Amino acid sequence: MFRSPSSLPLRLLRNARSIPKPSTVRSNFYSSSSSSTSASSSPSLRSYGTTILISSTTAVVLTQLWNYRNNMVQCDDGAQTIHTASDREQAYVTPDDSKSIIPSSKDPKYATKEVVEKVVGLLKGKFNDDQVTTNPDELLSHGVSANTYHAAAIPNVVVYAESTEDVSKVMKLANEYRVPVTPFSGGTSLEGHITCPYGGICVDLSRMNNIVELHEEDADAVVQAGCQWEAINEELKERGLNMFFPLDPGPSACIGGMMATGCSGTNAVRYGTAKGEWFLNATVVLPNGEIIKTRQRSRKSSAGYDLTKLFIGAEGTLGIVTEATIRLAPVLPTRVAVCGFPGVEEAVQAVGEVINRGVPMQCVELCDTLMMEAIGKFGNVSMPLPSLDTIFFKFQGSNAESIESNIKIVSEISQKYGGQDLVFAKNDKESDELWQARKSAHWSAMALVEGSTCYSTDVCVPVSNLPKLVKQTKQDLKENGIVGPLLGHVGDGNFHCALIFKADVPGEFEKVDAAAHRMVKRAIELQGTCTGEHGVGIGKREYLPLELGEGTLGVMKQLKDTLDPKGIMNPGKLYPDW
Amino acid sequence: MFRSPSSLPLRLLRNARSIPKPSTVRSNFYSSSSSSTSASSSPSLRSYGTTILISSTTAVVLTQLWNYRNNMVQCDDGAQTIHTASDREQAYVTPDDSKSIIPSSKDPKYATKEVVEKVVGLLKGKFNDDQVTTNPDELLSHGVSANTYHAAAIPNVVVYAESTEDVSKVMKLANEYRVPVTPFSGGTSLEGHITCPYGGICVDLSRMNNIVELHEEDADAVVQAGCQWEAINEELKERGLNMFFPLDPGPSACIGGMMATGCSGTNAVRYGTAKGEWFLNATVVLPNGEIIKTRQRSRKSSAGYDLTKLFIGAEGTLGIVTEATIRLAPVLPTRVAVCGFPGVEEAVQAVGEVINRGVPMQCVELCDTLMMEAIGKFGNVSMPLPSLDTIFFKFQGSNAESIESNIKIVSEISQKYGGQDLVFAKNDKESDELWQARKSAHWSAMALVEGSTCYSTDVCVPVSNLPKLVKQTKQDLKENGIVGPLLGHVGDGNFHCALIFKADVPGEFEKVDAAAHRMVKRAIELQGTCTGEHGVGIGKREYLPLELGEGTLGVMKQLKDTLDPKGIMNPGKLYPDW
Repeated sequence: MFRSPSSLPLRLLRNARSIPKPSTVRSNFYSSSSSSTSASSSPSLRSYGTTILISSTTAVVLTQLWNYRNNMVQCDDGAQTIHTASDREQAYVTPDDSKSIIPSSKDPKYATKEVVEKVVGLLKGKFNDDQVTTNPDELLSHGVSANTYHAAAIPNVVVYAESTEDVSKVMKLANEYRVPVTPFSGGTSLEGHITCPYGGICVDLSRMNNIVELHEEDADAVVQAGCQWEAINEELKERGLNMFFPLDPGPSACIGGMMATGCSGTNAVRYGTAKGEWFLNATVVLPNGEIIKTRQRSRKSSAGYDLTKLFIGAEGTLGIVTEATIRLAPVLPTRVAVCGFPGVEEAVQAVGEVINRGVPMQCVELCDTLMMEAIGKFGNVSMPLPSLDTIFFKFQGSNAESIESNIKIVSEISQKYGGQDLVFAKNDKESDELWQARKSAHWSAMALVEGSTCYSTDVCVPVSNLPKLVKQTKQDLKENGIVGPLLGHVGDGNFHCALIFKADVPGEFEKVDAAAHRMVKRAIELQGTCTGEHGVGIGKREYLPLELGEGTLGVMKQLKDTLDPKGIMNPGKLYPDW
Repeated sequence: MFRSPSSLPLRLLRNARSIPKPSTVRSNFYSSSSSSTSASSSPSLRSYGTTILISSTTAVVLTQLWNYRNNMVQCDDGAQTIHTASDREQAYVTPDDSKSIIPSSKDPKYATKEVVEKVVGLLKGKFNDDQVTTNPDELLSHGVSANTYHAAAIPNVVVYAESTEDVSKVMKLANEYRVPVTPFSGGTSLEGHITCPYGGICVDLSRMNNIVELHEEDADAVVQAGCQWEAINEELKERGLNMFFPLDPGPSACIGGMMATGCSGTNAVRYGTAKGEWFLNATVVLPNGEIIKTRQRSRKSSAGYDLTKLFIGAEGTLGIVTEATIRLAPVLPTRVAVCGFPGVEEAVQAVGEVINRGVPMQCVELCDTLMMEAIGKFGNVSMPLPSLDTIFFKFQGSNAESIESNIKIVSEISQKYGGQDLVFAKNDKESDELWQARKSAHWSAMALVEGSTCYSTDVCVPVSNLPKLVKQTKQDLKENGIVGPLLGHVGDGNFHCALIFKADVPGEFEKVDAAAHRMVKRAIELQGTCTGEHGVGIGKREYLPLELGEGTLGVMKQLKDTLDPKGIMNPGKLYPDW
């Protein structure tokens, strides 16, 4: 399928091909394909290149957690029920009344169940049969994610958008009838972004997965919001282009969600984040259904406010990004090595010196001793790995000579801080194995404790404060008997803690949850942030006043109220007072 | 002087020193120092490292242009008068009335002359004697710039802020009495950002020129808005740190203006622009006087909207940035060379291939044949220069070996496109000479025509469209008999045309002005922007609807009206309907 919004001056690339969608591509609770699976059958879900098994126990835990964490909707029935907005009484505001009512963020006035039902009927009239669904399994797979333990609720209806105009049509209806809208692209969020605490419409963008234009000379591409970053890179490779899109968050993440969360990944130390200059412009459907394009395609522009950036990191609370122009970087030769250090502090110091010397590193990743143990046992890596706090280096250069000369520099610096000799991957196979093991480290971490699951969290501090935060965190975990291997984008001061727990043991979730919150508070005290790359979603809302101050948060809220006066865009996320 | 806002959690660096302010640092019309000079004495103004001479003829021309270009304030008297807001009748709104009035962008209701006089008195009561001035020469030097030929008007009063609290005090008064406020830092804008079409208060930030904190390990620094980028880099060098701040717009530009315009410079091809990730956070005084800090100091954060970016490129229309945390990059070894090509197209193709191969280039600058002639004659460069369309390469690497290997690649690529052999600067002196000649190329351009001056403009298009735009522009200039040498940040598709004219020859200004506008329209047609790095100011306002569309501009206006409901922040800039 190959679509372009007719109202925008987009040139269709003659040779552009659709990126094939893997049969089931989401690492969600259930497959989002129409062949439904029941809640009790432990469905196998293929993410892009990874198989994820979700147990029915997890489903129960997820539902229980609704009660633990969510004060938004009162739930008083059994753990097997996931709540929808239609379960509760809501004030009804007719479209005619809407001008006279300014919705309070604490008491949003959304459409009643009856009105939502009417809107579902109207949606069915406006779209093809296969674009609108109220199938319970599909509602579940869109509102509830196996990636998080936050409160979760399902939408009333899912609309599979196939174009920017489709999204606009949905938003116009939603705006008219005050129905909440939650956008969904990859569904891989770790902070509950996709859940629908007020029910309403889920706009699924996964069918908008085309490269619309590709400009080799300009090293940019116009892509739809449902494109997965790996799929884009695969497509570029298949076309024989020596370019890639360097933002590399979790597997299966899509452009829409990547922009929404202000993502980054292992390449950020070299290429920066989604908040840098990788997104040249965005096509956005505003909460009233209006379509805008934030900027032209030139690499630079100083013409007016940076609206592209306004929507990057806005978590779908200001509008829905349907398309973006992305910049591409040349694929460069790399070499991959690991280096064990006596401790995290030494490793961080070595990395700081490597970076401040300007050695071109594509990635600099830390795994602590415990994570190395997990990877060693379960990571499927054939090369020998240190059983120490270890840095994974990905060297980059325009040719083998420049890489060699950089390796010399890094070896010297590492030795200065007590690092072992660098162990290099001998070939592409070993490199891929090693990087794959790093990318899926939390699966190895889970394997450390049989029958466990993993609570993943993300903080970021100034690099110089990282050793202190890691030390405090390790001490905390030890004192509380929590298995919590660490890994991090250490060059940026960003790290993740994989808190391992058994979902079916009472009290275990609360214990790791409390530890995660203590870690966040410590990060903020150390001039850091509650989230370096995962976004706020539901999980980190409470920390924004502490981290940013009420004044800064107030400005954000002003922007929200201006662009989304009815509060229909992804309600319940990002702001602490929803 | 060394200040930090007491209400913000800023740690004062014990060893931090004030950056010394050069005796007269602005390339403005007159020195902003209190020792005033008269309008007719052709004062010599030292910018940072460059001497600029301004003739009294230029002063007359500037004033005449007020009539050509400005419909905002009706002017009907002689060319020697620069208008202030107090010359015209304005509606007076008391603070008590303000809630009931939403100011129209086309008819802003500002304080009357009498109220402004009252506010000036109040300011004098709140600040030290040397912080508030109504000296006519100082008003002139703050409202009128020798860098532009746009409409210009002076403020009623200049306040030299020495802290964020000072700025807040001014904004609170201005907000209460509806007095327009125009921020001023380096005063080097080329698009009339500093002028005061509605009079009011100019907040001069040049005394806020301290490095407040310097974190070597984190490679960042907290700096005040009045810091010049060259001064920051000099200071880092003096302290023996191997780091620099890579945004390099025109000489003497300061952090405040650099953020306001979303600046970049010759290093952008390697380091990106002000809209990238060089500003980690900003301390901002909002139009109501409230002080916010947009983010913590960690390198990455996904905690809420990217408010730092909201103020970058906002041209002072949403608030005044008083302080920012900047990231620093390691200083790397470089080598500088020039390479002549048969034409602009071949040069651009070669550069495209160099960049897409991932060769680490710090700068890739184009000067066309005419500009090379100017530099050859007047640029004070001792090494031999090609008399062709020429690329200036600045190679970068972590050591001499990696630079050498990259030079080989670039030589091969250049030859493929008909480029001559690279001519290298033999030593630091030659490198500095060459780069200095590139940086001050427009002075050489002016020397091509005796008694001339230069109208500088800036557009940016996708790189692949650059040769077409250059060809069309050269043809246009030829047909209209305009001397217009070109130079550009060709790796980004951004270029400047130095349109040479004699200010005292009737019709010459109109001719180059019309050519500049045709060039802008062509750039927008080629998917480009009316400004790549100079900002909109007064000069490019009319192009925003064409470039962005009314919907996108409407969102910008909504943000403006939300954060600055009284329209007091830098009125007349950026929006076409002011």
